Amino acid sequence: MNLKIAVLPGDGIGPEVIAQAKKALYAIGEVYNHEFVFEEALMGAIAIDKTGNPLPEQTLNLCLNTDAVLFGAIGDPKYDNNPNAKVRPEQGLLKLRKELGLFANIRPIKPYKSLIDASPLKREIIDGADFTIFRELTGGAYFGAKTLNEEGTHASDLCEYSEEEITRIAHLAFKSAQNRRKKLTMVDKANVLETSRLWRKVVQKVSLNYPDVALDFLFVDNAAMQLILNPKQFDVILTENLFGDILSDEASVITGSIGLLASASLGEKNALFEPIHGSYPQAKGKNIANPIASILSAAMLLEHFGLFKEANVIYQAVEKAIEYKVVTIDLKPDSKFGTNEVGEFVSNFI
Amino acid sequence: MNLKIAVLPGDGIGPEVIAQAKKALYAIGEVYNHEFVFEEALMGAIAIDKTGNPLPEQTLNLCLNTDAVLFGAIGDPKYDNNPNAKVRPEQGLLKLRKELGLFANIRPIKPYKSLIDASPLKREIIDGADFTIFRELTGGAYFGAKTLNEEGTHASDLCEYSEEEITRIAHLAFKSAQNRRKKLTMVDKANVLETSRLWRKVVQKVSLNYPDVALDFLFVDNAAMQLILNPKQFDVILTENLFGDILSDEASVITGSIGLLASASLGEKNALFEPIHGSYPQAKGKNIANPIASILSAAMLLEHFGLFKEANVIYQAVEKAIEYKVVTIDLKPDSKFGTNEVGEFVSNFI
Ligand SMILES: CC(C)[C@H](C(=O)O)[C@@H](O)C(=O)O
Ligand SMILES: CC(C)[C@H](C(=O)O)[C@@H](O)C(=O)O
Repeated sequence: MNLKIAVLPGDGIGPEVIAQAKKALYAIGEVYNHEFVFEEALMGAIAIDKTGNPLPEQTLNLCLNTDAVLFGAIGDPKYDNNPNAKVRPEQGLLKLRKELGLFANIRPIKPYKSLIDASPLKREIIDGADFTIFRELTGGAYFGAKTLNEEGTHASDLCEYSEEEITRIAHLAFKSAQNRRKKLTMVDKANVLETSRLWRKVVQKVSLNYPDVALDFLFVDNAAMQLILNPKQFDVILTENLFGDILSDEASVITGSIGLLASASLGEKNALFEPIHGSYPQAKGKNIANPIASILSAAMLLEHFGLFKEANVIYQAVEKAIEYKVVTIDLKPDSKFGTNEVGEFVSNFI
Repeated sequence: MNLKIAVLPGDGIGPEVIAQAKKALYAIGEVYNHEFVFEEALMGAIAIDKTGNPLPEQTLNLCLNTDAVLFGAIGDPKYDNNPNAKVRPEQGLLKLRKELGLFANIRPIKPYKSLIDASPLKREIIDGADFTIFRELTGGAYFGAKTLNEEGTHASDLCEYSEEEITRIAHLAFKSAQNRRKKLTMVDKANVLETSRLWRKVVQKVSLNYPDVALDFLFVDNAAMQLILNPKQFDVILTENLFGDILSDEASVITGSIGLLASASLGEKNALFEPIHGSYPQAKGKNIANPIASILSAAMLLEHFGLFKEANVIYQAVEKAIEYKVVTIDLKPDSKFGTNEVGEFVSNFI
């Protein structure tokens, strides 16, 4: 197979971890005879520094015209505590999601057997947990109108959803549930929010097409609790953008480290793959960031193009790395292995 | 002291647990010579059933003219999955919060030594955790304009905040931090939301009055993770309405049961005390609901009126109940004690 892949390393630890994902893909390409052509481009704080724009035209055009995008991380503390910053790195990512129409962000959560004790949660709570979060990615408060009055004393964010936006991701989530344990949990705040009530209504309607999938509902406050109390109850979780952002970071503790979690963002035509961790600026350049989430994002990319055997080899390589404790310090505080070593191990295994 | 207390048992398990809180207050009144006059009123689903209104005029007037409100729980599943319901129980509570101006909801989180193993989190993660969440309670998406178009295909919720709304709760939170370990963590999503950027700006401004308090910031997704990874890092958490709703339910797992957590909602003139758990309809009438959160809400009420000695007796009684395992099944699955027995134990101890 020939694939043209846009690579956006982004900020902080992005470049280091993405380098390891590329290494794994190169190895797969050699062994299985695929041609992966990578083209790098700027996005985020680094793009602002170099061009003034967090998502330069050129980057966007590249992403629109490739088979897939592999993305690292975004964000820089110098923008975070400056409420007056006019451009922000995150705008680049949000604009890219919107322009590529990446409405579904899919985040699988499943602890590795050999890492179960790395979680702050007790073994019996998480052993056997296995669920996927479907987070809507191009709507809600992320993209609604924002206001700030002239005096800078009053601000607003609008959260909006349409039936169409809910329907399309609901179908994906139900289909995924059909291939899993046939349970879908819709998370919302329908006792307070109008948009949540629309979600509930539309999801009930879509569910009629999937009579073999059991549908239930949880309020987001309760869901935040249930994820920790009893994560095994979940199969597929479907939720709106901001709730999905919060719950999927929370759910990462089940696996012991957010450095293990990959995600796929899908649209009608385009697809982007990224680790769910952020830019982790404190770790930048220190060779301590966990590259596994990025490497697994590459595996999700392969799956997306039907290369299941190849993806599986990456999954196995990662499992071996974890089993042999070739891991970064987030998983083993006294580890002597760094970002590069873990990436090397994985690509050598392939 | 003479106190007139409005009692709103509400829905589900509300009446059962509130009965135990009243019992504790009666006992305190007798032993310490205070006169607590209780007046009961309707709110929630039960008020809709009886009057068509989740917050009848009479209830509101009573609450406006008492020293404090003791509230149970609200909500009934028959409204939750009906997106077309015109009146909802929760509207009663939201309206009450607004009308009484209860802008600050204060939720202390601290595990009981003897219950540390009841948490899904490992002992070493939670032992020593002790923090308080300040949740803004009368603004944000809970109260902004809501729309649903005529076809029922498009909905919106507006999240709004003003400098004034942020300033008043920020002062309370900083003052609390001054009396604690002098650390305040502001939780927001300033990399995406305009309202969060306003929060950040205003809180930075307010912080100048509290140079002895260390201020830091966390994005809400990261906060949802940090609460579980390392809850001991927190002292006072300050956040907006919806984030506070989610994070405080999540934080309840640290204590082993949401049935242990009380809250105070304060305004300029009024105060309301309530357990943070919901109406838990499945448990209604079964004498299995944990009354401790309600009893502790009563203790927070006493503290609010300066009755620290009396509040302390309740805290001690609750600790004894937990130590002697006179607890409900959420804390000890094979317990033979129910709501009443736990309540009896506590009031007898007083
Ligand atoms: C960087 C930020 C804008 C982003 C988000 O909130 O979507 C991140 O937290 C994520 O989850 O991908
Ligand atoms: C019942 C509901 C409206 C309420 C809220 O979301 O505020 C509850 O969850 C709470 O936390 O007090």
